[in-house]
Amino acid sequence: MGKTWYIGVDVGGTTVKLAFVDDEGHIIDKWDIQTDTSHDGKNITSDISESIMVKLKEHNTAISDIKGLGIGAPGFINMENGFIFQAVNIGWHSYPLKEELEKATGLPVILDNDANTAALGEMWQGAGNGAEDLLCVTLGTGVGGGVITRGEIVHGVTGMAGEIGHITVIPEGGLPCNCGKRGCLETVSSATGICRMAIEGLAEHPNSALKRIFDETGDLTSKDVFDAAKAQDTWAILVVENAAFHLGMTLASVAMTLNPSKIVIGGGVSKAGDVLINPVNHYFKLYSLPRVYEGAELVLAELGNDAGVIGGAWLAKTKL
Amino acid sequence: MGKTWYIGVDVGGTTVKLAFVDDEGHIIDKWDIQTDTSHDGKNITSDISESIMVKLKEHNTAISDIKGLGIGAPGFINMENGFIFQAVNIGWHSYPLKEELEKATGLPVILDNDANTAALGEMWQGAGNGAEDLLCVTLGTGVGGGVITRGEIVHGVTGMAGEIGHITVIPEGGLPCNCGKRGCLETVSSATGICRMAIEGLAEHPNSALKRIFDETGDLTSKDVFDAAKAQDTWAILVVENAAFHLGMTLASVAMTLNPSKIVIGGGVSKAGDVLINPVNHYFKLYSLPRVYEGAELVLAELGNDAGVIGGAWLAKTKL
Repeated sequence: MGKTWYIGVDVGGTTVKLAFVDDEGHIIDKWDIQTDTSHDGKNITSDISESIMVKLKEHNTAISDIKGLGIGAPGFINMENGFIFQAVNIGWHSYPLKEELEKATGLPVILDNDANTAALGEMWQGAGNGAEDLLCVTLGTGVGGGVITRGEIVHGVTGMAGEIGHITVIPEGGLPCNCGKRGCLETVSSATGICRMAIEGLAEHPNSALKRIFDETGDLTSKDVFDAAKAQDTWAILVVENAAFHLGMTLASVAMTLNPSKIVIGGGVSKAGDVLINPVNHYFKLYSLPRVYEGAELVLAELGNDAGVIGGAWLAKTKL
Repeated sequence: MGKTWYIGVDVGGTTVKLAFVDDEGHIIDKWDIQTDTSHDGKNITSDISESIMVKLKEHNTAISDIKGLGIGAPGFINMENGFIFQAVNIGWHSYPLKEELEKATGLPVILDNDANTAALGEMWQGAGNGAEDLLCVTLGTGVGGGVITRGEIVHGVTGMAGEIGHITVIPEGGLPCNCGKRGCLETVSSATGICRMAIEGLAEHPNSALKRIFDETGDLTSKDVFDAAKAQDTWAILVVENAAFHLGMTLASVAMTLNPSKIVIGGGVSKAGDVLINPVNHYFKLYSLPRVYEGAELVLAELGNDAGVIGGAWLAKTKL
């Protein structure tokens, strides 16, 4: 009897994550391969295809049992033709990823931005818990976002919807952002932004535990900052408070626009847990209306690195 | 031969607007009736029904030619059962508007918030020009909003989506808003907010043309402020600049979230035209990314008071 499996793929700058996912969204098997960024990333699709064939053999499964492949990739994506405009970390420029991957695997392929596939994964199997109106925020080196309305990703007219990391929170005198603007949310509430602010204030806070760590190691991580805040370090608390203020206020603005039932917060920074989420929640409520904050549960992402492959499988299941 | 007509209805605190609309979205006939707010607004549905019957007779048209009725109403609406939680200006509290209007007219009825029906009207026949990702902003006494993704209104989980007038723009020390919060966009960029700021600064700007108008008439309108700004009055320009800064920056935040192809600006304040729209556009571009502002055209609403009835007809056409 035939199986009903989907393949989810999540392309990152270092590894490509892959998984077989069943019709109910459970991972049958998952594995990684290295991302070959040589030759402008042209070998990636054949690497993906070969590793799938090997795994299918291990599972005594025929390619005909795979109903489709959904792939998340970084960068700007043209949903209509499956082109990647630009994915700097990978090397793709105007690259027909969908077409190339269909050629290599013989499977129908659907492509979306990796922040969006992660959001769909959390909606289907993670913290979203089936919510149809959902905002996903990823706090890592940057701040990413995925917006879901009526159960589907909002792409917008040029695929830029959900770029909440580049909402301006400091209109004058903000720090420069990678996007070319200044004062974006990403400059204050990402791991990078949190560490930068913590380090910049060390001279004025010589008694902070962070000063000792920085003097010893020559650097600070966002985990250092959160750990110090948990231990009641005054400077660390101020830094976290600043990040939480801007994030909470931005989430309030976005929630006044979308009125989501869940706001899922993921990425490395979210591992800080309550020391971050509690003040974010405080400012979120302060700057939104009761019918909005009472309708929106702020929750931590549950799927970690699996969100992308599960979301890819969801796309394959629902869109192919 | 039977006709294919829809009825659009737009309930306001003073008048109820009605129209027969054909399958292409053209108004066959439109008229107003007074809004009877006595007895908690309980007569409104029978008033609507009676005026429809009179008009049908005038057009020698049978009720069977009407395919459905779409109605926009102010207040919080439960889309699932067609209840109005609360519409203060009308007198409705937990009122089953859909059911009552179906009983009174014998027609299938669909209900939405009036800001949303106006947005749908502009999408179908107005400045939206069929755009599937659309943000509508109404600048009047307050600031209203309607969000459309993939051609449909975003309601969110408690029907609050699109309440962009209550996005906080002044996090500390902002003026109180009708919603109970402080520093909402509505407090600075509505007609009320513009007039308030203009009046409050008159003592410091005794040479402003606005000072003379205020001394003569005892009040200022937003039109006074815009006219003075057009005539290069320094204080009036600063007031308009302030309203445009906050509106432009908020539109940028919302556009980074939704990536709309059109931002339609309507309401009485929008009649100011370029003197307002040009600085709004400046700040909108300053605080959004090129792929977002290049994708989003800022346009003035085109349908005026007809937007609501046309949007109601659109709902009847597509949802019944």
